[in-house]
Amino acid sequence: MTAHNTKKNKDAGIVRVVGIGPGALDLLAPRALAALQGAEVIIGYRTYLELVESCFNPEAEVISSAMMQEIDRCRKALELAQNGRDVALVCGGDPGIYAMAGLVFELAKNQANTCAIEIIPGIAALNACAAVLGAPLMHDFAAISLSDLLTPWELIEKRLEAAAAADFVTVLYNPKSKKRTSQIERAQEIFLVHRDAATPVGIVHAAGRGDESVQLRTLADMLKAEIGMQSTVTIGNSQTFIWQNRMVTPRGYAGKYEL
Amino acid sequence: MTAHNTKKNKDAGIVRVVGIGPGALDLLAPRALAALQGAEVIIGYRTYLELVESCFNPEAEVISSAMMQEIDRCRKALELAQNGRDVALVCGGDPGIYAMAGLVFELAKNQANTCAIEIIPGIAALNACAAVLGAPLMHDFAAISLSDLLTPWELIEKRLEAAAAADFVTVLYNPKSKKRTSQIERAQEIFLVHRDAATPVGIVHAAGRGDESVQLRTLADMLKAEIGMQSTVTIGNSQTFIWQNRMVTPRGYAGKYEL
Repeated sequence: MTAHNTKKNKDAGIVRVVGIGPGALDLLAPRALAALQGAEVIIGYRTYLELVESCFNPEAEVISSAMMQEIDRCRKALELAQNGRDVALVCGGDPGIYAMAGLVFELAKNQANTCAIEIIPGIAALNACAAVLGAPLMHDFAAISLSDLLTPWELIEKRLEAAAAADFVTVLYNPKSKKRTSQIERAQEIFLVHRDAATPVGIVHAAGRGDESVQLRTLADMLKAEIGMQSTVTIGNSQTFIWQNRMVTPRGYAGKYEL
Repeated sequence: MTAHNTKKNKDAGIVRVVGIGPGALDLLAPRALAALQGAEVIIGYRTYLELVESCFNPEAEVISSAMMQEIDRCRKALELAQNGRDVALVCGGDPGIYAMAGLVFELAKNQANTCAIEIIPGIAALNACAAVLGAPLMHDFAAISLSDLLTPWELIEKRLEAAAAADFVTVLYNPKSKKRTSQIERAQEIFLVHRDAATPVGIVHAAGRGDESVQLRTLADMLKAEIGMQSTVTIGNSQTFIWQNRMVTPRGYAGKYEL
């Protein structure tokens, strides 16, 4: 059995959900590039489209939208594909990590859509931020979004508690917005119960783009960093250290071999 | 403050730790390709080198090694770079996720190495497997390696317990080898305490390569699947469902909006 069923209906078209990676064109995979070059219709959030617009076929119809309109975007993509079009739905990072891959399937299921759907993976923010920071994710890690728009805060807090207690390196997505400022404070409190105040924390904004910024802090003073909607916050585990401005989590070789 | 200090010493060279992604050349990022084309020396595990050898500069010196020789590989790369060479150290997937990025920094620190080190991110196995499966990672998730070669089994079990109890989608790396067969059974037991027996589980082998295989199972019957060293096992959360052979975890839109 394979899930690779990308062509299901001769008359219907296809939605390719394309991960463009962190934004630098040299981190865009050739498969994603080909999808952008070949698409008849390209749909996405304006900011992401601008990062890759040099890759579009000049003949393509481009539908850009503001933030927070994910449902409209996915619905439009499916509707056009159902009518035979070849559609690229553009996501930042990887489409499967806090992006639109899941929503496309949910909508297609509810609408009994028969077009083909292909997910083209990309380098996710967590991978790109880790590379910029050094090697913070090298051991078991958890990814948690602090946005409680779609998830009850109690569940998010339960996950923060579990990740902190079991010494997972932890990547926080959507750590803070203009309206949501207390969540990151609560996350810090929870981690301080379980982890040393000196635990390294890396805050990366716009990894790999022109306005990239990297801040290295400790768990105790992480809130002094500039943290925004597009920041990704990586909290080290009990073994993580800083060496020459790099944040590194050992894999465990030093305990077993002479390094 | 930035961690982007890639050139530190005029006489020393550079180690680029290159993530080649899951193996398909059209998922290799241009930055990784450029590093492979430009390197004077290319070092890596034989299987990964064979996947990308068409990208090498024909003049490059290629040092391939067997499995389990990560320390030798990293040491060699640093030694050559310290002597002025431009070295690409090849990793499967993303160098920062269960690969060699961390070990390079650990060794460089211990040896007071002064060469430059650059991490080039790649599409990790967890991203590639998710794309093949559908959209299983769409909500908070944890990555756990079941290999107890370098990590005490008690800690791994603690993390399995935490991830299972807090309803994280969970990706298991190194689930099973010829010698390690009980760990995946114990993982299943732990998840069955906290999650429904019908929870979808996706097992992917060699995502994006010629010998790719995808198996969709439930938590109850996951051990009937073929699981090997190179398999990645993704266990859904309490909301994950299967639709037309795709494994999908909802992000939460359906609870708030009409889909």
